[in-house]
Amino acid sequence: MKVIKFGGSSLASAKQVKKVFDIVMSDPTRRIVVVSAPGKRFSEDRKVTDLLIECAQRILSEGTTTDLVELVLKRYSSIANELNLSDDVMSRIQNDLQRVLDNKLNLEPNRYLDAVMASGEDNHAKLIAAFFQKQGIEAHYINPKEAGLFVSNEAGNAQVLAESYKNLSLLRERRGILIFPGFFGYSEEGDVITFSRSGSDITGSILANAIKADVYENFTDVDAVYSVNPSIIERPKEIAELTYREMRELSYAGFSVFHDEALLPAYHAEIPVHIRNTNNPTAQGTKIVKEREFTNGPVIGIASDNNFCSIYISKYMMNREIGFGRKLLTILEELGLSYEHIPSGIDDLTVILRQTQMDIDIERNVLARINQELNPDEVKVEHNLSLIMIVGEGMRQNVGTTARAAKALAKAGINIEMINQGSSEVSMMFGVKEAQEIQAVQALYEEFFVGVLI
Amino acid sequence: MKVIKFGGSSLASAKQVKKVFDIVMSDPTRRIVVVSAPGKRFSEDRKVTDLLIECAQRILSEGTTTDLVELVLKRYSSIANELNLSDDVMSRIQNDLQRVLDNKLNLEPNRYLDAVMASGEDNHAKLIAAFFQKQGIEAHYINPKEAGLFVSNEAGNAQVLAESYKNLSLLRERRGILIFPGFFGYSEEGDVITFSRSGSDITGSILANAIKADVYENFTDVDAVYSVNPSIIERPKEIAELTYREMRELSYAGFSVFHDEALLPAYHAEIPVHIRNTNNPTAQGTKIVKEREFTNGPVIGIASDNNFCSIYISKYMMNREIGFGRKLLTILEELGLSYEHIPSGIDDLTVILRQTQMDIDIERNVLARINQELNPDEVKVEHNLSLIMIVGEGMRQNVGTTARAAKALAKAGINIEMINQGSSEVSMMFGVKEAQEIQAVQALYEEFFVGVLI
Repeated sequence: MKVIKFGGSSLASAKQVKKVFDIVMSDPTRRIVVVSAPGKRFSEDRKVTDLLIECAQRILSEGTTTDLVELVLKRYSSIANELNLSDDVMSRIQNDLQRVLDNKLNLEPNRYLDAVMASGEDNHAKLIAAFFQKQGIEAHYINPKEAGLFVSNEAGNAQVLAESYKNLSLLRERRGILIFPGFFGYSEEGDVITFSRSGSDITGSILANAIKADVYENFTDVDAVYSVNPSIIERPKEIAELTYREMRELSYAGFSVFHDEALLPAYHAEIPVHIRNTNNPTAQGTKIVKEREFTNGPVIGIASDNNFCSIYISKYMMNREIGFGRKLLTILEELGLSYEHIPSGIDDLTVILRQTQMDIDIERNVLARINQELNPDEVKVEHNLSLIMIVGEGMRQNVGTTARAAKALAKAGINIEMINQGSSEVSMMFGVKEAQEIQAVQALYEEFFVGVLI
Repeated sequence: MKVIKFGGSSLASAKQVKKVFDIVMSDPTRRIVVVSAPGKRFSEDRKVTDLLIECAQRILSEGTTTDLVELVLKRYSSIANELNLSDDVMSRIQNDLQRVLDNKLNLEPNRYLDAVMASGEDNHAKLIAAFFQKQGIEAHYINPKEAGLFVSNEAGNAQVLAESYKNLSLLRERRGILIFPGFFGYSEEGDVITFSRSGSDITGSILANAIKADVYENFTDVDAVYSVNPSIIERPKEIAELTYREMRELSYAGFSVFHDEALLPAYHAEIPVHIRNTNNPTAQGTKIVKEREFTNGPVIGIASDNNFCSIYISKYMMNREIGFGRKLLTILEELGLSYEHIPSGIDDLTVILRQTQMDIDIERNVLARINQELNPDEVKVEHNLSLIMIVGEGMRQNVGTTARAAKALAKAGINIEMINQGSSEVSMMFGVKEAQEIQAVQALYEEFFVGVLI
């Protein structure tokens, strides 16, 4: 049995919905279909979810917004009309949306926002179920509350509750094709709570875990996960197979094909995740698995992300001071700063953090506290760093990967600000100045994917 | 004005004491002479300090030890006789030693041990002052209590108290050559407390800081600080000049020429430290300074040390868990474990620590607490790692040092278990398996000191 999830662009129009139908029907084991809200039909188009967010915000601030509600309904009706669905479907969607929008007074603003957003997926699931039924297929819209998808009470950042897995496992016994709206669950009090943005991936992964699917197919609009960002390297190599850990490391540093939180449920149940293209369903796609064979040399992908900064602290004999590191981390934690890495020398260390967390006040504050409480010889902040990760389980067995990477960077005239590589790791991280990020990625791609393997 | 310190082997015999006299007299600015206890005259010889430790322990356990006391006194008398010193000197030393040894009942055992040990330096300073006087030179034995060298109350690990600097600065005004015993100071209650072992270096550095010496000369039995351990590479390159930070990084990982705690007072007052050879006083030696010119390529020295272990911890989404690192460091701190480095990936981190801290019980304990409190996916300990540091302030400006180092290691077939390099650092650290340490150092020496510079 397979869980199959479609992203917003795969469901943006009647033409796309028909593709989805064909894909689902071509394999009788595709039994649970997770759907997103209608996405963009063309690059300037607006996603239904974005329209709904604006709706909710406008109603919260101004009390009403007829034009935006019309825009949302028009997206559904244009699909429904082209698919020749009965008027029942649209009136059901219209009533449901109105009910959700009218519920403002009963909910806190962030709960209200969640409920309005979630209606995008929920209503689209009803529409798609109706389309399947019209083709003579036994298909059922499944309501997440009725199916028992319960989540924590954190609006916009729901975490699945353990009991949900047992509830959802019963979906195995249902008849027909189950159309399940992605992106949200219900709190134990019965409120709609959404996952973080793009959370339909998470719903699919939870379902795949719950029913112990053979595979979790994730249909999107690219042929595969690429070995490097295609905006940096034209037509980069596609990755046929990678491990959960490799995917996780890549998605940390900018690979956004698959929501990284969504890997967790699949990972725990060891369900393979298969990323595929709705618009090119015969392409092989990318499989995320527990173990793979190492066929392509040590490196499987190169990721990079910018907007990091570093706090450099040096203090003579720091090394002898028991509790120095712990005190530093406590200061960061108390200021609400989360850090990424702490490479260290004997008497100095560098804390790498995402720059977005730091404004001038916070920076002044953190420096003042470090000076006051840790009494260092020197402390300074460096801005605008990029982290570049080369990722591959094969690196562990491969003497010389570091040398190849460092040499490629040196040849390109790039200064390595920082290196971080622990034992048993599947990645190696280089810090460089933001201005050199693209050059650095190109040099590494050249070395590991184009250059002759040593 | 110079502070000049002589190590134990420089003062082990009458012949050596005469060399010391000549060195001091050859430069009228050499005014404060810090002396150690008599060291080894030949490799199987015993240091007076070691004899004194055994004395103290024997007396503490058995109540008496005539033979060992005789041995100690014989070391002094053989020097005094050969130098034709009057009997007064020896009877003064004998009385003093007896007084110290008899004081057992008034002191706690570790204080008693400190007092007995410190007598080695103290009595030798008296002997040497007498020899200078016999040559017609105005020289004075200086008692650290009278001069105001006050230290914290930590037996065997004294830390200088701030007030001492002001007291000791008055030594500038004294006449003649001042012979000052190294290795100990006095607590505010008036007890003798020693620095950590080899602490005469520390005394000299404190004095150099206090009197704002032009230079702190540290005479020992090697011509210079070598760029690498001479037991690994035969006749390695000598270092003419290096910075405090470079020296500190090297001494962390096994360079034992100069006590690393001793750098601190000199560093704070920016006093150059000049390491020289008593047995070859015309050799240029090694200067430790604040800034130097980079003449020898990026690397100035390669150090290595073994007996490290690592705790590897991986947990899916660790990166998202606020406080994970701080909780881990708190566990280590509560178990009394101090760590060296924490290289990290996205979802894993490695704690490097000195293996001597870990026995089977502590290891079991730390693993249990990590499992219980941090709930990781995996945690494991790896034993017998070596850390290799390549050190040089020039590395910062030098694109490609990492590449050269990593390539040299790869060519020698050495797997890099771990790399740690932060921003603004003067060192780069590689973790390798202990069995490959020597090979790794050889490969790096070959690359940076023998190979043609790129």
